[in-house]
Amino acid sequence: MFRELHPSKTYRLLESGPVVLVATGTPEQPNVMTMGFHMVLQHSPALVACVIGPWDHSYRALRDSGTCVIALPTVELAETVTKIGNCSGRDIDKFAAFGLTARPARTVSAPLVGECLANLECRIADMSLVERYNLFVLEVTHIHVDADKAERRLIHHAGDGRFIVDGDTVDMGGYMTKWRHLMD
Amino acid sequence: MFRELHPSKTYRLLESGPVVLVATGTPEQPNVMTMGFHMVLQHSPALVACVIGPWDHSYRALRDSGTCVIALPTVELAETVTKIGNCSGRDIDKFAAFGLTARPARTVSAPLVGECLANLECRIADMSLVERYNLFVLEVTHIHVDADKAERRLIHHAGDGRFIVDGDTVDMGGYMTKWRHLMD
Repeated sequence: MFRELHPSKTYRLLESGPVVLVATGTPEQPNVMTMGFHMVLQHSPALVACVIGPWDHSYRALRDSGTCVIALPTVELAETVTKIGNCSGRDIDKFAAFGLTARPARTVSAPLVGECLANLECRIADMSLVERYNLFVLEVTHIHVDADKAERRLIHHAGDGRFIVDGDTVDMGGYMTKWRHLMD
Repeated sequence: MFRELHPSKTYRLLESGPVVLVATGTPEQPNVMTMGFHMVLQHSPALVACVIGPWDHSYRALRDSGTCVIALPTVELAETVTKIGNCSGRDIDKFAAFGLTARPARTVSAPLVGECLANLECRIADMSLVERYNLFVLEVTHIHVDADKAERRLIHHAGDGRFIVDGDTVDMGGYMTKWRHLMD
């Protein structure tokens, strides 16, 4: 079951730097790409900055619709994530080719990726950095997290097709005196 | 021993999204902060985007000198990294307080952090996004990697003081047909 997480908690999903999928189009005509260059830009309203260039087939769909979904794949999807990043929606229907499920989103036209641990619905908030850096600023408008998914380990692209899998968690929350206000 | 890595390989160190330290000042008067909001912006010349705000004591030092060093701490430094992020260089000498060694860099005035796995010397490449987003665009000018350090597991901030430690590596390099040119 998909559970809602407030957009202001985007940092809990993205600050650790997982590789993500970006879904564009619609549930009927979806496309998806792999993205490694992204960051949390602001806590609230939640802004994410990411590089999507004219070399990506998704670039045009993102610009035209003004929306996309950032989806977080877990480790069992590592091969799929890599293959998605090495072919183009110009040539194939990637959702069909890789057995992914496009589901309707709540606030945007772009589809969710049913197999992913979390889906962040996004709309373009600022295009002024696109010309210089292909840098889109997105606002996260709704977050779904799959509460039932057993596998929860994200993967982090260390370049050249090597992914680091989430290992142990170390909790230093007791020392977070300065940032306590974020931890409600 | 510190070994050199070409700046164009910055993505191998930062794309996986580790929490980093940012050192400013000089080896004689160093300061250091913890940073979670950063991304690789461009492969070559290697650009990194990162959020450093006026609320950070390092903000002024970065602006004044135009340089900083991005240092990659490994898991044994998790407590130190958190404590560094919850105090200010206004009040204490963090290098002294946390037993860190400031070492001279090659291309910038800011110091290296001797205890870290890697140190990326950076100079400000673009300040035009600072006013709107506190977003600095840095160019990486030199990289040092500690070839002898036994502990090599980076940590990734999942928010609220929880860090995910590097786990297993999954190598999907064989599927990287489209991005092969990066892998020399």
